[in-house]
Amino acid sequence: MELIDGNLIAAAIIAELKAEVAALPGRKPCIALVRVGDDPASVSYVKKKEKTAAEIGIAGRIHLPPVTITQAELFALIDQLNADPGVDGILVQSPLPKHIDEVAVFRRVSDKKDVDGFNTLNLGKVAQEDETGFVACTPAGIMALLARSGIDLKGKHVVVIGRSLIVGKPVALLALQKKAGANGTVTICHSGTSNLPAITRQADVLIAAIGRAEFVTADMVKPGAVVIDVGINRVPDATKKTGYRLTGDVEFTGVSAIAGKITPVPGGVGPMTVAMLMSNTVKAFRQNRSA
Amino acid sequence: MELIDGNLIAAAIIAELKAEVAALPGRKPCIALVRVGDDPASVSYVKKKEKTAAEIGIAGRIHLPPVTITQAELFALIDQLNADPGVDGILVQSPLPKHIDEVAVFRRVSDKKDVDGFNTLNLGKVAQEDETGFVACTPAGIMALLARSGIDLKGKHVVVIGRSLIVGKPVALLALQKKAGANGTVTICHSGTSNLPAITRQADVLIAAIGRAEFVTADMVKPGAVVIDVGINRVPDATKKTGYRLTGDVEFTGVSAIAGKITPVPGGVGPMTVAMLMSNTVKAFRQNRSA
Repeated sequence: MELIDGNLIAAAIIAELKAEVAALPGRKPCIALVRVGDDPASVSYVKKKEKTAAEIGIAGRIHLPPVTITQAELFALIDQLNADPGVDGILVQSPLPKHIDEVAVFRRVSDKKDVDGFNTLNLGKVAQEDETGFVACTPAGIMALLARSGIDLKGKHVVVIGRSLIVGKPVALLALQKKAGANGTVTICHSGTSNLPAITRQADVLIAAIGRAEFVTADMVKPGAVVIDVGINRVPDATKKTGYRLTGDVEFTGVSAIAGKITPVPGGVGPMTVAMLMSNTVKAFRQNRSA
Repeated sequence: MELIDGNLIAAAIIAELKAEVAALPGRKPCIALVRVGDDPASVSYVKKKEKTAAEIGIAGRIHLPPVTITQAELFALIDQLNADPGVDGILVQSPLPKHIDEVAVFRRVSDKKDVDGFNTLNLGKVAQEDETGFVACTPAGIMALLARSGIDLKGKHVVVIGRSLIVGKPVALLALQKKAGANGTVTICHSGTSNLPAITRQADVLIAAIGRAEFVTADMVKPGAVVIDVGINRVPDATKKTGYRLTGDVEFTGVSAIAGKITPVPGGVGPMTVAMLMSNTVKAFRQNRSA
């Protein structure tokens, strides 16, 4: 079994972006990071994004509207950022307060600055294999992990567990694309799938994005398969100071004993998402400049 | 084996639309049909669409620019139709002459009048399960055939052969949706799939959209499976006056002997596409009126 080290691969991508940005003449790329309220997880995520941007040489503009902001006020902020030629990418940190329609907010972000890849138009472009679009960071991160681990999906059977809009569907569409490295045969399973283990056991590459702690067990995996674990779940653990530990959607001890390659949690897919956000920001900068 | 009669089901939908349109007060829905040049197949398709619209009570506005029209001129025509409040749906008949970028033309059509469902935004809405969008007519027709034949995809394994943007990908996304009648587990195969028969034999519902005459043979089908044949291929046939006969992607004689239900070619999926185009036009009329 070989561990796919997301920290290492993300660090390599960040180093490449840093060199790329350093070579850019004139104004550097800029990402606007919008965080509504003070949700502790969001505070930590935005901090991480800000830090990574700074490391690469991407300017970060932080906007911290209060949790009481109205949808109209948030739209006004987004419109202002959409119109600002000094802003290349816009990230609105999820989750948003309940009184705000998250999908409407994601749609409000200009598709040309949608570095999160949640805009409907960019999702359509993934299906169309239109490279001018932005791919959502988690599925893009999974594809980068596979590519940089030397895993070519051509002729392979890729089984995705989970049909979310953020991971399952886009990663299925990416694995299916006609381009080099992709070209997989793709099956999408979910909570309503009958006889799931019989299907997952056919996977040459198994992508678990179902959001259930240690759901994928060794009996569900073909020996030698590549296993990508997208889950981040908190399970109670009295031995930890926090009272919980983080675990993926894969029962790591059992599955790693038979898998060919596997991502750990944490340190697998997680670090890739921030790297891909930065990669999208540099792409947005280049595209909007040349437009 | 039970035949799924597309002519019958399409006629039922057309009759329902006719009743629905008759009950509408005021101006009736209107579809603009744009046909560039005189390609014989296009002439016949547009005529069929015009006739079906008239039967339902949908007004048809026919635009017949010459094959020499420039892309800019075609864009100007589309812009004019987009802006016209009397036009609810716009269909630009494919194929277009080689000097015109077809995808760019489909994108130029307002997503609110895109009754063909080829606009990138509407494709994204299929992935998002956003019912305000328009679904392309062939995949929508396949789903209607299944629903009206009493086939519920819940817990079923749906295997799609073909990953085109017009059929394979959208029908896969539709079969996967969380709504009633869908909820299938979906596998998408294509020309690069290894050991295809082993996968297709797992299908409870097999959708063939690969564009190769009689490609799916009995050994690739599980006894009792539902088989939907999307192909329309011309094969040479000296016994015919035309010199060819039409055949699907399924070898009908062999497969129909073991399938549970099967669509014929012609008379299966084909007639459904025009019915769904009309259904989309009535939907566009309602949505644009209430907007």
